Amino acid sequence: MIHYKAIAKIMGGLLMLLGLLMLPGIGFSYYYESGDQVPLIYSAFVSMAMGAILFFSFSKQDQNIRKREGYLIVALSWVFMSLFGMLPFLVSGTITSLPDAIFETVSGLTTTGASILNDIEALPKGILFWRSMTQWIGGLGIIVLTVAIFPLLGIGGIELFVAESPGPTSDKLHPRIRETAKRLWYVYVGLTVVCIGLYFLGGMSFYDAINHALTTMATGGFSTKNASMAYYDVPFIQYVAILFMFLAGTNFTVIYFGLVGKFDRVWKSDEFKAYVLVVALIIVAMAIPVYLFSDLGVEKAFRDTAFQVVSLLTTTGFVTADYTSYGHGLTILFFLLLFVGGCAGSTSGGIKFIRHLTFFKNTILEFKRIVHPRAVVPLKINGDRVTGKIITHIMNFLLIYLMVFVMGSVVLSVFGYDMLTSFGAVATCLGNVGPAIGKVGPLDNFSFFDPFTKLFLSFIMLLGRLELFTILVLFSPYFWRAN
Amino acid sequence: MIHYKAIAKIMGGLLMLLGLLMLPGIGFSYYYESGDQVPLIYSAFVSMAMGAILFFSFSKQDQNIRKREGYLIVALSWVFMSLFGMLPFLVSGTITSLPDAIFETVSGLTTTGASILNDIEALPKGILFWRSMTQWIGGLGIIVLTVAIFPLLGIGGIELFVAESPGPTSDKLHPRIRETAKRLWYVYVGLTVVCIGLYFLGGMSFYDAINHALTTMATGGFSTKNASMAYYDVPFIQYVAILFMFLAGTNFTVIYFGLVGKFDRVWKSDEFKAYVLVVALIIVAMAIPVYLFSDLGVEKAFRDTAFQVVSLLTTTGFVTADYTSYGHGLTILFFLLLFVGGCAGSTSGGIKFIRHLTFFKNTILEFKRIVHPRAVVPLKINGDRVTGKIITHIMNFLLIYLMVFVMGSVVLSVFGYDMLTSFGAVATCLGNVGPAIGKVGPLDNFSFFDPFTKLFLSFIMLLGRLELFTILVLFSPYFWRAN
Repeated sequence: MIHYKAIAKIMGGLLMLLGLLMLPGIGFSYYYESGDQVPLIYSAFVSMAMGAILFFSFSKQDQNIRKREGYLIVALSWVFMSLFGMLPFLVSGTITSLPDAIFETVSGLTTTGASILNDIEALPKGILFWRSMTQWIGGLGIIVLTVAIFPLLGIGGIELFVAESPGPTSDKLHPRIRETAKRLWYVYVGLTVVCIGLYFLGGMSFYDAINHALTTMATGGFSTKNASMAYYDVPFIQYVAILFMFLAGTNFTVIYFGLVGKFDRVWKSDEFKAYVLVVALIIVAMAIPVYLFSDLGVEKAFRDTAFQVVSLLTTTGFVTADYTSYGHGLTILFFLLLFVGGCAGSTSGGIKFIRHLTFFKNTILEFKRIVHPRAVVPLKINGDRVTGKIITHIMNFLLIYLMVFVMGSVVLSVFGYDMLTSFGAVATCLGNVGPAIGKVGPLDNFSFFDPFTKLFLSFIMLLGRLELFTILVLFSPYFWRAN
Repeated sequence: MIHYKAIAKIMGGLLMLLGLLMLPGIGFSYYYESGDQVPLIYSAFVSMAMGAILFFSFSKQDQNIRKREGYLIVALSWVFMSLFGMLPFLVSGTITSLPDAIFETVSGLTTTGASILNDIEALPKGILFWRSMTQWIGGLGIIVLTVAIFPLLGIGGIELFVAESPGPTSDKLHPRIRETAKRLWYVYVGLTVVCIGLYFLGGMSFYDAINHALTTMATGGFSTKNASMAYYDVPFIQYVAILFMFLAGTNFTVIYFGLVGKFDRVWKSDEFKAYVLVVALIIVAMAIPVYLFSDLGVEKAFRDTAFQVVSLLTTTGFVTADYTSYGHGLTILFFLLLFVGGCAGSTSGGIKFIRHLTFFKNTILEFKRIVHPRAVVPLKINGDRVTGKIITHIMNFLLIYLMVFVMGSVVLSVFGYDMLTSFGAVATCLGNVGPAIGKVGPLDNFSFFDPFTKLFLSFIMLLGRLELFTILVLFSPYFWRAN
């Protein structure tokens, strides 16, 4: 039996929080006299009222969350937040069609950053701020899930560390988990504040600095400018963005340990080491041809490459250069970055380093196993042995991820979009990145898609953001049949 | 220590056989007075002489084959056969550049069917026959490997059935294996003969019937006509081709059991059942839109779809219609067929059904495992439980396959080919199919690629044909370090 009352109570709490977070935008509405305070106040009121009704209708003793409720909570959280989160757009009339509003809100809450807006700068400041805020909320949500729910469900790349330990399979939140959640929350808020300061220092207006910091730390990529970060052709700002996108793609626990000086814990993380090394290697490997085949000069070629690589790889999606303009070879490489993702336990989406690392290590070992068929060749990550069950699970995740990418591309192709556009749109939505290739390149947006495709891509964004299994398991008969 | 002498002896035997199989073409040279007997005689002599030297230089007691020799034998067999198999093309001057000759011969021996020839019909009849023969030899080689070597190495999709049984890990060929090999050889030769008869009956010349039968049963796809099978716009011939391509993609052991009336053994094969069911479903699912979006009429729409589906899926590569002309949706679906492959134990290349089936079944079970984390949920194929080790191995194969596809596409893109052409060429070479999408569509050929790319694609064909690991393991330090 599924405890729907407990789920409803949580949804209620979530909606109250969502409504609360609509309020700061009202300040900007008044300050800029952009005239969009009423839609924001109305939306906030509706969300909070609905939330309160749900929350206070159910007593605290119903709050009994177990594994199966976990999946529903995760999926429904994003659905509820999307339904109420799009109110400001619809009520203000800045987005008039329902599929468009759903796409834009889901793109925000999943920290994707794909947009159906042709003229972002035309949006009133309060609504525009809410748009950025949806990403920050999405990032926050993922951190909460990562600490509190994903370990319980054994997904999100976290399965590697917990699936065999008895800890997080118990029914109630462990006090240690509360402690961890608090730490990560400090890191997230703290880095956002520092990022605001640095963007401001670099010459952004206070408003733009807040907006961009919110979407940077969420690896979201919504900008307040039509030209995205290319608008700020200031090396300082762009390097700050590179640094904070990179940090936002790092496991926040690792950042915490770095901040409190426990560097041994930082370097114990195989994923973090791989992340630093691979990102550096990719930047160097791609900056050289970009430099050679353009007339940008050394610094600009390096900065453009580093920016685009970090932006795509961490699934942020800001752009400062048209990465499809360097020829076929570099275009395909930038396209492949959509399949990388940052670290588990960050706000970044996509496949993530821990899974790539598991696949990479297992492939090497597979050759060893072939040559020495009778030897026991265990796979170790962070010094710990990974069980065969988890390896199988992760490889299956990778294959399902690619399968969803392929199936999604087929759907778009059947709807008449050319193959590169289909591949690009699905890859970038599934990876929660934003820009892609084909007709959804770095200079384009998603407005030209038909309504069905926009809804379909919204679903793909949710699938990707919630680690596939969370959503897919709801479609399995096992889930509903289980007692 | 690797027993190089035993390997050399086997290569010698192989070259003698290769030279011997060059002789039948001479008959056609005389009959058609095509004037290409001398190059064939010369090439046959050189191959046989070199083979004899290698074979008779080493005594029989050196013939001690174990696992490590197995890998080298597999890889070197194709390398040696390619080096001598291209002699007729080069000596006759029908192909003048070395990379072209390598590409065409490797394409033949790997049963791929991609060609660098612009005018196939201009080739003298003896040489043209040798071209078809290379595919039949390749198919024969794969059957031998499947029975005698792959089980020893635990690859080729066969790992599912043997890896845990103690049988084929012994050093010498088991007498039962000899028996099986003989059966499969009868099936291969028998079906080829029947196919010749039916093509002839359908109106092909005797020469064309033999050529096409050789390449049909090898799932090769080399034709003697520039228009491939589209030249024969005769329903009977095309349906015969569909049937025999399908049979060539079936596990030959299953065909043997079917022929001797042991139908219970046929239906015990989960792979065969999946193969029949999925192929039928795909044909129906794709024939409907082809019918709706074309003015072909019911029969022709069905026949064209069935032909192209079976041809691509079984990795044969004959074409009777431009499958890229039905719009984006169908094009991507035809493209995806390049990643299917027939059954293990057939002459078809690619991923093969057994691996797809393992992935599919495991994915379903993965959801069951998520919902019931403490339950033991074993994966069964043909009624037998598949171990986790083998599941991991197969999923790793799938991921490496996709990785090679992606990496290969990057290489072609870096060499300046557009993304679709790169994806298409690598996918079709890796899957040993033949035609693809982009600039290597069903009406194109591979002549426009630069020499490096032709050699690179030849390597990709070998990788795919020899089940990846056979070749890749040779690049692993474990292989050379082992004792």
